[in-house]
Amino acid sequence: MITAGGTSEKIDQVRSITNHSTGQLGKKIAETLLSHSSVTIDYVTTRLAVKPDDRENIRFHLIESTQDLMKTLKKLFTDQTYDGIIHSMAVSDFTPAFSLSEEQFIKSITQTPLTSDSLSNWLLENERNQAKTAKIASDTQHLFISLKKTPKIISYLRKWQPQAKIIGFKLLVAVPQTELLEIAKQNLQNNQLDYIFANDLTQIDGQNHHGYLIATDGTIKEAWTKREIAQLMALVMLGDSLSDQ
Amino acid sequence: MITAGGTSEKIDQVRSITNHSTGQLGKKIAETLLSHSSVTIDYVTTRLAVKPDDRENIRFHLIESTQDLMKTLKKLFTDQTYDGIIHSMAVSDFTPAFSLSEEQFIKSITQTPLTSDSLSNWLLENERNQAKTAKIASDTQHLFISLKKTPKIISYLRKWQPQAKIIGFKLLVAVPQTELLEIAKQNLQNNQLDYIFANDLTQIDGQNHHGYLIATDGTIKEAWTKREIAQLMALVMLGDSLSDQ
Repeated sequence: MITAGGTSEKIDQVRSITNHSTGQLGKKIAETLLSHSSVTIDYVTTRLAVKPDDRENIRFHLIESTQDLMKTLKKLFTDQTYDGIIHSMAVSDFTPAFSLSEEQFIKSITQTPLTSDSLSNWLLENERNQAKTAKIASDTQHLFISLKKTPKIISYLRKWQPQAKIIGFKLLVAVPQTELLEIAKQNLQNNQLDYIFANDLTQIDGQNHHGYLIATDGTIKEAWTKREIAQLMALVMLGDSLSDQ
Repeated sequence: MITAGGTSEKIDQVRSITNHSTGQLGKKIAETLLSHSSVTIDYVTTRLAVKPDDRENIRFHLIESTQDLMKTLKKLFTDQTYDGIIHSMAVSDFTPAFSLSEEQFIKSITQTPLTSDSLSNWLLENERNQAKTAKIASDTQHLFISLKKTPKIISYLRKWQPQAKIIGFKLLVAVPQTELLEIAKQNLQNNQLDYIFANDLTQIDGQNHHGYLIATDGTIKEAWTKREIAQLMALVMLGDSLSDQ
């Protein structure tokens, strides 16, 4: 299984919060794996992501939100077991809970003074009150959107597919290399992955894509292009351990 | 000139608020107009929107945010005058000003009690303080995003291109027909447009696209498909008045 592209969380019927991801890397990984005749892929992606060519041994599953992704994965994981999962999709950390106009916001935080203790209740109440807005009001100079955490898909993969070789991704922005590797390793461990690919947005530019594939034994392989990343992942997925490379 | 697709406003380097619009209608309008040999089009759209085929008499201008759109239009309008402008792009009403974690939010609204009078200052201060966030914190259960109004592009078109025949769009969601027409007419008048196309999201489904083209003299023509909309617009752009149809 490969997940690729970026999820979108609806604010209302005409607006969403979207995580950027062109899908280029997932496409390259799929194409590299498919050049091995024995491979079949369930490819989970979004409508707007670029996709590998349609052919016999790839099945597409389109999702939009983190919740869609959760539902689709649960279904696929119920139906079958996977040899490997490459979870390259950029999944939204947050999803809109409610929105308030300037007037609503002031009214809401002043009628009963808001404190750290009352915050949870205030959030719940606002979320419950939110009429299922068709389209947010535009007759306000400012708009406040409250977002809540989405479930961490990556933390469920090991439980759902204990036998699978799982590769996760950690994308940070403009951090020192040591910090990037440290955070990625923590993530690898916390989520019981087999590999994690650590990369920094500032080092991605079209087909140039710098990053580190880290194994549980601490082995690290560096890649400089989407092609090199795809080749590394195909190698580890098809049986070799990273330290043999 | 045709604008088509939907703008995106960056929250941080990996997330945006996006206005949905596939660009299908703009594509159809462009293709219908281009079937008349004398027409040349400046086509302003986004990277992800579907586009008419590239050919000699169409020039593409890619934008992302409302601010980009503003800049691109200003430049194009400085360089030349247009016979007609069809502004079908879904433009964001709001753009992110700042975001706060749960902890920052509570601290910010409790250290000096926030009232309607102090709100403007609070907003300005937070916007000023916001470190240019590379990627918003994800170590918070809730995130608050404050958005501010973007400039209303449609309100500038008449001033910038007084000679042009201008068609605007008004999209509402699940409102009665009378309300849709009333709001659209108000918009037509306020922005000194020549025509406005009033439509409701619940009546758009692929190539089926119901709506009303309204002229300043009150004439209304109904369309049921993207093809009919494109034909109506081509007719009025190429010289006929709507009441002759």
